[in-house]
Parts: sequence; C-alpha cells; structure tokens
Amino acid sequence: MARSVNVAVLGIGNIGGEVARRIASGASATPSSGLELKLVAAMDRGPEQAAAAGIDPALVNPDGVGIVDRDDVDIVIETLGGAQPAADLMIRALAQGKHVVTANKEALAKNLPAILAAARDGDAAIMYEASIGGGIPLVVSLRQILTNNRVDSVRGILNGTTNYILHRMEDEGCDYATALQGAQELGYAEPDPTADVEGLDAANKIAILGTMMAGEYFHPERVDVTGISGVGLEDFADARERGGTLRLIAAAERRDDGSIALSVAPTFVPNTDLFSRVVRNFNAVEIVGDRVGPVWLHGQGAGPDPTASAILSDVAEAAIAGSGASPTMNL
Amino acid sequence: MARSVNVAVLGIGNIGGEVARRIASGASATPSSGLELKLVAAMDRGPEQAAAAGIDPALVNPDGVGIVDRDDVDIVIETLGGAQPAADLMIRALAQGKHVVTANKEALAKNLPAILAAARDGDAAIMYEASIGGGIPLVVSLRQILTNNRVDSVRGILNGTTNYILHRMEDEGCDYATALQGAQELGYAEPDPTADVEGLDAANKIAILGTMMAGEYFHPERVDVTGISGVGLEDFADARERGGTLRLIAAAERRDDGSIALSVAPTFVPNTDLFSRVVRNFNAVEIVGDRVGPVWLHGQGAGPDPTASAILSDVAEAAIAGSGASPTMNL
Repeated sequence: MARSVNVAVLGIGNIGGEVARRIASGASATPSSGLELKLVAAMDRGPEQAAAAGIDPALVNPDGVGIVDRDDVDIVIETLGGAQPAADLMIRALAQGKHVVTANKEALAKNLPAILAAARDGDAAIMYEASIGGGIPLVVSLRQILTNNRVDSVRGILNGTTNYILHRMEDEGCDYATALQGAQELGYAEPDPTADVEGLDAANKIAILGTMMAGEYFHPERVDVTGISGVGLEDFADARERGGTLRLIAAAERRDDGSIALSVAPTFVPNTDLFSRVVRNFNAVEIVGDRVGPVWLHGQGAGPDPTASAILSDVAEAAIAGSGASPTMNL
Repeated sequence: MARSVNVAVLGIGNIGGEVARRIASGASATPSSGLELKLVAAMDRGPEQAAAAGIDPALVNPDGVGIVDRDDVDIVIETLGGAQPAADLMIRALAQGKHVVTANKEALAKNLPAILAAARDGDAAIMYEASIGGGIPLVVSLRQILTNNRVDSVRGILNGTTNYILHRMEDEGCDYATALQGAQELGYAEPDPTADVEGLDAANKIAILGTMMAGEYFHPERVDVTGISGVGLEDFADARERGGTLRLIAAAERRDDGSIALSVAPTFVPNTDLFSRVVRNFNAVEIVGDRVGPVWLHGQGAGPDPTASAILSDVAEAAIAGSGASPTMNL
C-alpha cells in the first residue's frame, strides 16, 4: 500500500533540479519506503529554470512564501543555497507543521536555534543529512551514536573541493594555483572559490556537527578557520618527510575543561591514518564515542546524485516517522 | 519529560551482562533520547550469573518464556547467542507486540522469515544493529541508503577475530597457529575457534546483509564459505609482491543476471584499497548504491562496550518510533 506524500522543492538548480526531476518522473518512489512522492510545486525564477531541470513549467513559480503556505504541501525540500530567504522559508514551513529537508549548511548553521524552535512549535521534523558529507550517512550515524555515548570528538574532511586540490598537490606535485584551476575546470570549484578554499563551507558543517555533539548551539563564527590558499608544495615536502600528508580537517573537540574547540585547518595526517587515504573529492569523518570508540565514515561528499539520494532518504524518513510505522526490516 | 520503558534481558553473559548492568545502574538513560529504561527481568541460570553481571539476583531466573510473556515488559533484549531457544523467544515476544533488540546473528540469519512474520503480526520492531559490525552504524546506514538506491554490492570485514589473525600474520610474519594462539590469549578467539576461523560467523552476517540488500531471504547455507585456516605466510608473500595483502572479505554481490552471489573468502586487497588499512580486530564494510556511490564504514566490530552501545541505540530507536516522536535534532 503506497502512501502518497506531496512535496514542494525550493530551488531547482543542480541539486534541487535533480530531486524535482526524480520525484516528477516517479524515480524516487521506492519499494522499501512504500511511499509515492508527488511534486506539487517548485520555487524558482520561471520557465527557463523549469526547462533546464526538465520539469513541468506550470509547477514552477518564484513565490516561495506562497508555495510554503499551500495546504496540500506535506514536505518542503530546500535547496536554494545561501542563508536567506532559505532560513525564513524553512522556519515558516516548520511552524506550519510541514517537515523540511534541506541540503543548505549555511542557512542551517547560521539559524539553527530559530529553525529548531519552529520545528518544535510545529511538531515537524527538520532533516539535513544532505547538508554535510553528501551521500555519507553521517547525520543518522552521529544521531544513533549520540543516543547513548558521550561524543568528545568529531573530525572530518568535509569539503570535496579542497580535498581535490590538496590531493592533486600531493599526488602530482603541482602548485596550489594549478590545482585550483583544475578543480574549476572540472566544476568542483566555483569561479569565486572563496567559500571552499578559505574553509567557510567546512566551518558551517563543523558548526552543525559540533552543535549536535555538544547539545548547545555554535554559530559558524565560533569556528577558528584557516583555509588552504596558503598551502605550498614545501608544506607537502615537510609532511612527507614526517611520514604523512596534509588534509583540510574540520574538528569539534571537547577540551579538558568541558568546553568545545571548533576548528578548520590544513592538518598533518600520518600515513597510518585513514584520513591520509581520502583522495580526489571524497569526504570522510571520524566520530569518537566513549562507548563505541572511533567510527569512521567515507564516501562522496557532493554532487547531484549522492546529495539527491541523501535528500530523498530524509524525505522517506520524515514521511515514515509521521506515519508511526515500526522500523522493521522489509522483505 | 522522561518516558519510562520496561526492559527484559535474555542472557547476561559478556554482552547482555554489560547491557543489564547499564540499565540497572541508570547509565543507559540518555538526555538525547529522553528515555528512562528500567530492568524488570533477566533470563539466565541463576544467582551466580546475576552476581557475575553485578545485578540484583531477584531479577534473574531461567524461565525465558515466563519473562517474555510478562505484561509489563515493553522491550526484550536478546543476547543468548546460538540459534535456539533465542529465535523462538524472539518470535514469541514479537508476536505479542514487544519490540526485540538482538545481537544474535546466528538466530537471526537462520530464522529471518519467521522473525519478520512475527514482527509484522505483532506490529513490533525487530532491531539488530548490534548483530553485525558491533558499534558501526551499519544497519541504520544500509537502511537509509536502501530507501532510494539500488544496492548492488555489500562487502566487508565482518569478523574481528580473523582480521586480528590475518593482520598479525601480515605485520609480524608469524604463522597461522601462532596468530590464532595470540587471539585466544587476548580473548578475541574462543577455545574452539571454528565459527570464526572457518567463516561461519561472517556467513551469518553477510546472509543478513544480502537479505536486506536484495529484499529476499538467503539462509546462511547459501553463502559460499572459505575460512582462513588454510592461509599461509607464502600467501602473504604473494600478495605483497602483487602490491597488496589478504583480508577475509564477506560479500553480497548482484550478478549480471540479477541473482545474488554470497561469499566469504580470504581475498587479495590492493594497498590502495581502504580494506588493506583495516588492522587488528576492527571491522569495515563498503556499500555501493547506484546513487550515493561507494560508502565505507569502519569501527569496532565486537566487544561488550561497542556492542552494548549498539543495543542501547536500538532500544532508544524502537522506543522512540513507538512514541511517534519526530526525528528532530535535540538542542
């Protein structure tokens, strides 16, 4: 018995377009979740974006508030990017009792308290698996571990663009500017790469993970950030001499006095460390719980396919949680 | 507002004793789940086992059926080991609408259809995160990925004992018998190590993962099994020459004709492969989804602490799912 769920997508660019197209084509309906998703509206500028995403232009209009307020929308998927109007639209949807699934780490990290308050008020779920580590089941894993561990450390390679650049410098011995240009040619880096290479994207992500870990809110401004634009080939030579390499590590770590240190910085990792084996634009994260010990996850941190997959998993979980179904295995 | 949940533990040995002790001492109550667990009964032979586990002997008796049938039990934790009477007790509890959390891969793998049917009949959850990969959030991750991916391959190092033996042979150049003896001295291997070294334990685990992946049942007899007792130092020398090493890999893979191949065998892994970096008694698994691509998880696959952690996470999830609470983040 498939259950029908009405979905609106805010922003149908790279990621949102992939999600909207899958829902509209029925490709998102999955036997294991028993859900039938229906795309009822998409927010974007107009027919041109609809055509680019390959979805019915009649579903697309720029009125985000109007879409969020529709009575027939059950779940809002937010893939606008940028802090605003994304955060305000998510808050509005949640307060009305609509579940929200987002891939937007910036809007989330900068507005978590207001977003969580709206979710509580509306008794709705805010789901954000896709916002950190793309297709890696990171949020669900951290949430599971947190139910009965004290987590004192979450460390990760959370930005694929910078990992691609650092790995190329390590592997090919090319300098930073050449590696950055390569990343731009492949579409891994934006024409203005600041948010990635200066560590701001990773800072948003580790602020969210640190908030989960500590149970108290950390604005991304609290993160001590050093990007990779100052990393030179001599730094890799030094690291090699010490038996390791360099990666951009984002970390949330509990200090001895109980406070939380949040940082993003190019970091030496020994060759015996799994992080040294993270190549190209992959992501990885290590969660250390006092009972489970170190848990390490690795996968594709970005791209329309993995990110859309994480979004649609969240959609399924939110819809199933709302139905009160038991988490038994389907055969 | 803490919600009180009554729990019975079947079997208070190594793992079950740890779980029972934590629940009895209140150490399992966790702010993030908002649950207060209460140990109301434990099945084991008697006062001697109660004393060894450090729990009130008045709670312990050998009558498993009597304990499962108690009206005041909400959740049954099964850590007896062995196929029976574990499977029959789980089926009995589920049919009565009690959630069951198990660490018992053998009972599960050999009786999955009957266990799932009982869960459906009783509208109860069967949770088994602890039965594969100990503290690694593997079941929750695979379940998330399966909601909207076709998974064509699950491969893993699922037995810590054999990985410890193989890694020692690789690292120290000692022979199989010496490495096995070392594992026995550390308590990683049983006095009769057959189930581990002949691959039967890994076969139970990959049968469960293959069943999840394919949505059809595979009895562990369907797994093509080769253990590690025939692996010699010359095999490691060969592997080293080819630029890699040996690991006991359990695999569920979809063939071109759509059928599923299940196997456990000592396998060559190149040095560039993350599996080659799995040392000592750690476990790891790779899930390949058609949308998320390869996702790789690594952690402690056994031991009272990680396994008890996985059990208590499942207890929290089962209890929360039953309450209809939304999966919002707690701050």
